[in-house]
Amino acid sequence: MKHVMEQLREAAALNGPLCVGLDTDPSYLPAPLLKVFDSPIEAILAYNREIIKRIASEKTACCCKIQIAYYEAMGIAGLKAYMRTIKDVHDAGLIAISDIKRGDIADTAKAYARAHFTGDFESDIVTVNPYMGFDTLAPFTEYCAPAKGGKGIFVLLRTSNPGMVDIEQQELKSGGRVLDKTGAAIKKIAAEFKSSYPDSLCSPVGAVVGCTEESDARALRDAYSDIFFLIPGYGAQGGAARIAATLLDKAGGTVNSSRGILCAWKKTPRLAEQAEAGTLCLKDIADAAGEAAVAAKADLLGAKKELGL
Amino acid sequence: MKHVMEQLREAAALNGPLCVGLDTDPSYLPAPLLKVFDSPIEAILAYNREIIKRIASEKTACCCKIQIAYYEAMGIAGLKAYMRTIKDVHDAGLIAISDIKRGDIADTAKAYARAHFTGDFESDIVTVNPYMGFDTLAPFTEYCAPAKGGKGIFVLLRTSNPGMVDIEQQELKSGGRVLDKTGAAIKKIAAEFKSSYPDSLCSPVGAVVGCTEESDARALRDAYSDIFFLIPGYGAQGGAARIAATLLDKAGGTVNSSRGILCAWKKTPRLAEQAEAGTLCLKDIADAAGEAAVAAKADLLGAKKELGL
Repeated sequence: MKHVMEQLREAAALNGPLCVGLDTDPSYLPAPLLKVFDSPIEAILAYNREIIKRIASEKTACCCKIQIAYYEAMGIAGLKAYMRTIKDVHDAGLIAISDIKRGDIADTAKAYARAHFTGDFESDIVTVNPYMGFDTLAPFTEYCAPAKGGKGIFVLLRTSNPGMVDIEQQELKSGGRVLDKTGAAIKKIAAEFKSSYPDSLCSPVGAVVGCTEESDARALRDAYSDIFFLIPGYGAQGGAARIAATLLDKAGGTVNSSRGILCAWKKTPRLAEQAEAGTLCLKDIADAAGEAAVAAKADLLGAKKELGL
Repeated sequence: MKHVMEQLREAAALNGPLCVGLDTDPSYLPAPLLKVFDSPIEAILAYNREIIKRIASEKTACCCKIQIAYYEAMGIAGLKAYMRTIKDVHDAGLIAISDIKRGDIADTAKAYARAHFTGDFESDIVTVNPYMGFDTLAPFTEYCAPAKGGKGIFVLLRTSNPGMVDIEQQELKSGGRVLDKTGAAIKKIAAEFKSSYPDSLCSPVGAVVGCTEESDARALRDAYSDIFFLIPGYGAQGGAARIAATLLDKAGGTVNSSRGILCAWKKTPRLAEQAEAGTLCLKDIADAAGEAAVAAKADLLGAKKELGL
């Protein structure tokens, strides 16, 4: 049996490393188009579905990352759309990463793991926040075992926001940075899973590593050679393909682009004009997103090639 | 205008510092009783409602803390019960703390703040995880402004789980521990709010401080004299009333008890027997919870008095 992170690694090798981030907000769609639907949530759902179908059929991405916060902000109806979007991702044969960044202790962590690895919100891989301690990861990693479905988790290691200097990058008296402590915990868990998945080239426990600084990217890639990375910060957040490509070395990773894909139509003057005129339709927007996915895939594969990877 | 944390401080002074944690899980109710209801979720909702009514009428608590993870674990229907429970807490005239421990960056943090300070899941105070950096707190603290409703947040400072040594308690090369960095950020935000709320005795930005070690409790209480604390770890988690009372000094705080209240019936031999016999009803369970709340309040106030506070 292969765990889902290994499946993702293989999908990335086959279809390229792009992860399409469905952090979909109603404000990403022009107002006249929103009015065509019964509600903004229906519009988002239809929009997500169009993009998912396109990237699946064109094989431009290996997975979708769904940022739950955007759906949570729309209440119960939003979370129904979240649930539905995960289903659409699965129906299209793609792996779903739920960007939930939950982190809590004991029975509460167990409840979160149950919430996102079973039931209505069942996903393949979730992101987790290790701040409260490494004992908080166990309820999630339990589901990575073969008997529990071979799920995957991405632990926040080095995020892509300016504030990551506040805690993650702090130097410790005992040596290394806070993020190195987290990294050591990830390595320890990865080692524990080796015997369960002897044929896997990566661990079911991955890490979130933002592509913001090249030297850091190289050092982290070398330090965690069998850890698959979820790589935010490419595209709208300003990270360059070259840094992302560095992080794609060894066990590899998947590079997320959300607004760069979802809002691609805004950067196409013809479509922006159509939006002004109220004649932009969902297909135009999905076309622009599909083209942006093709371009992002090419950009990332080009950068990989340039680095000789 | 008073912000909600100041209202909570006043409610704690009036009705005692107990916070009743509604981390309600179907397993806390005996199986025959669950069957009386259409679904386990209906049972939980009814159970929550009974407890809320009782503590409100008996004035044994100043607020309820609702742990969203337990409801999230039950999917869409569970989150409807979560929404409904917040409403029940409000209808009873109590302040609702949503224990969500969200933490994310930029627009995602904004979405989480919108999710829990407006709309279906609107609450009074939320818990937040500062790990990704102190820039991640701003979207939440925006809602603490008078023009945005005067909401409150509790930032994780020193949690009550064993794993808090992994990151929170790590000593930094630059001096102090990781949690002191978080504490400094809390103080800075608190100072920024002073002019908006000149008459408040505490800041709208509070801190989560577990009651696990007396020396730590004293040091943290002294270091953050105008910060109101949310205090987990009392009761089921083993923290003593004396340590909790130490944390209730100065700006004060609210002491959470979840299972100690919710599962009080299990510690009453007569009720445990009735549960075995299948004759335990919701009123019995709520009676036991109500009595446990009375006892917890007395325990905490007694410990405060003993410390001369």
